[in-house]
Amino acid sequence: MAFLQGIAASNGIAIAKAYRLIEPDLSFKKQSVENADVEIERFRAALEQSKGELAQIRDRAREELGEDKAAIFEAHLLVLSDPELVSPIEDRINTDNVNAEVALDETAGMFISMFEQMDNEYMKERAADIRDVTKRVLAKLLNVQLPNPSMIAEEVIIVGEDLTPSDTAQLNRQFVQGFTTDIGGRTSHSAIMARSMEIPAVVGTRKATEEIQNGDLVIVDGLKGEVHINPTPELVKAYEQVKDDFEAQKSEWAKLVNEKTVTADGHEVELGANIGTPKDLKGALENGAEAVGLYRTEFLYMGRDQMPTEDEQFEAYKAVLEGMEGKPVVVRTLDIGGDKELPYLNLPKEMNPFLGYRAIRLCLDQKDIFRTQLRALLRASSHGNLKIMFPMIATLNEFREAKGMLEEEKTNLLAEGVTIAEKIEVGIMVEIPSTAVLADQFAKEVDFFSIGTNDMIQYTMAASRMNEQVSYLYQPYNPSILRLVKMVIDAAHAEGKWAGMCGEMAGDETAIPLLVGLGLDEFSMSATSILRARSLMKKLKKSEMEELAAKALSMGTVEEVVEAVNSVVKL
Amino acid sequence: MAFLQGIAASNGIAIAKAYRLIEPDLSFKKQSVENADVEIERFRAALEQSKGELAQIRDRAREELGEDKAAIFEAHLLVLSDPELVSPIEDRINTDNVNAEVALDETAGMFISMFEQMDNEYMKERAADIRDVTKRVLAKLLNVQLPNPSMIAEEVIIVGEDLTPSDTAQLNRQFVQGFTTDIGGRTSHSAIMARSMEIPAVVGTRKATEEIQNGDLVIVDGLKGEVHINPTPELVKAYEQVKDDFEAQKSEWAKLVNEKTVTADGHEVELGANIGTPKDLKGALENGAEAVGLYRTEFLYMGRDQMPTEDEQFEAYKAVLEGMEGKPVVVRTLDIGGDKELPYLNLPKEMNPFLGYRAIRLCLDQKDIFRTQLRALLRASSHGNLKIMFPMIATLNEFREAKGMLEEEKTNLLAEGVTIAEKIEVGIMVEIPSTAVLADQFAKEVDFFSIGTNDMIQYTMAASRMNEQVSYLYQPYNPSILRLVKMVIDAAHAEGKWAGMCGEMAGDETAIPLLVGLGLDEFSMSATSILRARSLMKKLKKSEMEELAAKALSMGTVEEVVEAVNSVVKL
Repeated sequence: MAFLQGIAASNGIAIAKAYRLIEPDLSFKKQSVENADVEIERFRAALEQSKGELAQIRDRAREELGEDKAAIFEAHLLVLSDPELVSPIEDRINTDNVNAEVALDETAGMFISMFEQMDNEYMKERAADIRDVTKRVLAKLLNVQLPNPSMIAEEVIIVGEDLTPSDTAQLNRQFVQGFTTDIGGRTSHSAIMARSMEIPAVVGTRKATEEIQNGDLVIVDGLKGEVHINPTPELVKAYEQVKDDFEAQKSEWAKLVNEKTVTADGHEVELGANIGTPKDLKGALENGAEAVGLYRTEFLYMGRDQMPTEDEQFEAYKAVLEGMEGKPVVVRTLDIGGDKELPYLNLPKEMNPFLGYRAIRLCLDQKDIFRTQLRALLRASSHGNLKIMFPMIATLNEFREAKGMLEEEKTNLLAEGVTIAEKIEVGIMVEIPSTAVLADQFAKEVDFFSIGTNDMIQYTMAASRMNEQVSYLYQPYNPSILRLVKMVIDAAHAEGKWAGMCGEMAGDETAIPLLVGLGLDEFSMSATSILRARSLMKKLKKSEMEELAAKALSMGTVEEVVEAVNSVVKL
Repeated sequence: MAFLQGIAASNGIAIAKAYRLIEPDLSFKKQSVENADVEIERFRAALEQSKGELAQIRDRAREELGEDKAAIFEAHLLVLSDPELVSPIEDRINTDNVNAEVALDETAGMFISMFEQMDNEYMKERAADIRDVTKRVLAKLLNVQLPNPSMIAEEVIIVGEDLTPSDTAQLNRQFVQGFTTDIGGRTSHSAIMARSMEIPAVVGTRKATEEIQNGDLVIVDGLKGEVHINPTPELVKAYEQVKDDFEAQKSEWAKLVNEKTVTADGHEVELGANIGTPKDLKGALENGAEAVGLYRTEFLYMGRDQMPTEDEQFEAYKAVLEGMEGKPVVVRTLDIGGDKELPYLNLPKEMNPFLGYRAIRLCLDQKDIFRTQLRALLRASSHGNLKIMFPMIATLNEFREAKGMLEEEKTNLLAEGVTIAEKIEVGIMVEIPSTAVLADQFAKEVDFFSIGTNDMIQYTMAASRMNEQVSYLYQPYNPSILRLVKMVIDAAHAEGKWAGMCGEMAGDETAIPLLVGLGLDEFSMSATSILRARSLMKKLKKSEMEELAAKALSMGTVEEVVEAVNSVVKL
């Protein structure tokens, strides 16, 4: 047995067999072959095996995932039967007596580069198809197993370097019990995905893919961030107990679902859920959300090949507002760019996308996109308690311009006879240091702040949360972050406004005592974190947390802060 | 005549003919040709013209730039004479009756991708050669002129989208009178290069390459940031006067070269120069530098294929310290990574290099590199007034670790009997928002701060200065930036330490009054900006600037701040 320490990214315990979702090593050497005919036979065998595998995957995809996904594999089968590709490979083996790997790779490489150079979408897709099938045949030649996530048909724990959105799209979710990855932190895509699927996950283990083989029995401890590989029967038994205890604790927490969130000394705060689509509402309400503190509208724009229409957007916003039955819904306007791309927008590649053209910057530049969204929001506003929030605001002028466009569209819609809610609060995400530092000026003009800590931490520390080499600098409890949070909260309160937080930090058990002490009014988090947070807050006294926070603000390092929290709050 | 407004990047007036240093449009359509023989003749003619041109460039390079550079063009000539490349192109025209452009591009493309796929440095270089000569022949076929910067032999103004380090390396500097570019700001490579070459430059015109043709007469007004294209004789005459006046003003400023920098009401500050190599010392002293406020040591590491040894570094540091004859020299330890690469370090590609593995982060990880530099610095310390500065410090722990390593090496060297200066100040660059916000904690442990505004602004505003689409957010006078600067200065003074600035902002005429008002102790800038800054400071009253700064700190936008400065300071 072996053990890995990682980052607890999603609560709970999973025990199942490992399924490695990684790119295998397909490197090979150029070699001379004595007998070209034998080598050609070897190539043909690999080709036939690949075809058989593809046919099987196609059939399964048709059953489980639909005709669309199956068509991809059908296209791959056609490529493998195309003599225009196959003959030159065999000719190459015959003429130059090279091994099949070289003949395949170089011949396919020429076709790929030829097709890619052509300014034609169809040909570029063919290049991608050739690349995919070449990989498959190469794997057969090298006798290496390619992962086929759509073929998973038993309970597994997914093991990967990291999981991309396209990896997770291919997973058959009913069988995936947990995740563990080499890289990533609490805010990486795989972590967020695990929480929304409500399955345990441990990320950032550094060597899950090195240590875990296919079929190994694995325990993922998403509570402590631990991974156990081929554990003893005793450990499995102990963890089955932990799993039961955790389920029992969850049942205890579940009793808080309809309660308010009040500290032990009577201070009330609001706990909201972060959601991505109207489908997430069910989980939010089942977990006792008092509000939607962040509705990420960009998912409406993703996974399609053109902008959503005003009507499509209206329906989605209306569904969320109605679903929340009058509870507050903070809708963030489009936050695209950075690490989130929309292929149909044709955004230029940037050297530093996190410091680039994204979110409100893009919306103020491509005004039609923004006005369509604002109109859809205004039209939906009469169906619930809508609050509109602009992301990535760095200057007062940006806020003024965005708000001005909202007012114009309101005037236009009223002239068209549309009913609009009387009062719609308009606020901003505070995720850029300049805005936190200047919060007193912003507070005069906005209705609320919501602190987006995921980005604010990376800008304030100048450390990308995507980069493992500097992840030690991604420090939510750094006193500088706490000071910026305080500036925002104090500025809001001085003008009678409210301040919330919708980054990962809002649901973090070490951060919550500090945030209560700093006077944060609203906490928005993954739905699955809400009940645990409510349970914790009911045990805290605000007066004590204020003392704790004041101390933390005058400290120099994150270690001192964590120690101070741990000495006051026993989790 | 036409006019462009850009950003004044380097002082002075230049009047000369335009030389466009840009990639021409080499796009073409696929066509059928009736007579393949005629098309082959057209191809051969283009080939012969290209050879003639290359031979000429080779000869000139041999004369002007040395045998090394000439060898590159010799290699290109060999490629064009290689039947292995030429025959397949002619065959392709013959067989498929395609135009020569298609035959050339696709055939060369196949060779390039084949060579690039091979894991062999020599073959990869051949791929690059083929790419270069293909471009040249294609240009001949399309009757398009390629720029040949090494062929410039008359006074010119360089016109480009942007200028890369490799562009400027090829320029024959004696003929380049000025620059103008489409993109970039005051801190872009081309701007910094222009200032160090002391030639006028206007960057960020957005359409210099669109409006200016080769041979157009161009006036570059590096004082106002204006570019005039094919001006009237009257305007040329007027500008010759402006040029004379500017030279006269420079002579006036030159009288301040040995003066101290004292405001009209008697407050003294220190004006230092930013330097990159010991060679820059001459310019610094001629321009009246009272210190070296920033010695960027990374140039010692660049343009070579291995690390500089401890002795090589020692010699460079000693030369600078001795050259400054006891005046302060602030040496910044290695700041590599981000946009500055060292090929021999094999740094991984990052998604957001500005938020990644660079500077002190790299040095604390690759300790041998750092210790070698620290030892060289300590050994040189007895030759002048050395101050050591760590870049990109984000946390107190990083500073403590770096300082600890310095102390260890000091102990080691003393044990070896090396003489080390008794007092070496150890400070940090403040360029990460967390460090500015926590400056009071840092001030207890560091000897000084130097604010690096180039990076601090881009992190604080979350806007890359390399990205034209968000350059409007690169705002040195944003009140949030001024507030962070104030936090740093106040924190230093509370502990009896000094605070300087070594970003571009320190030499900016709009910023200087505010910085004097905020109490900045040291200003370090391009050598060529020092005398102008001294002249300005002698006209300012610190008491008035303090009032101005206090007002600016309570403002909401950069526009208000600029207006306030302009109403008080008449430049």
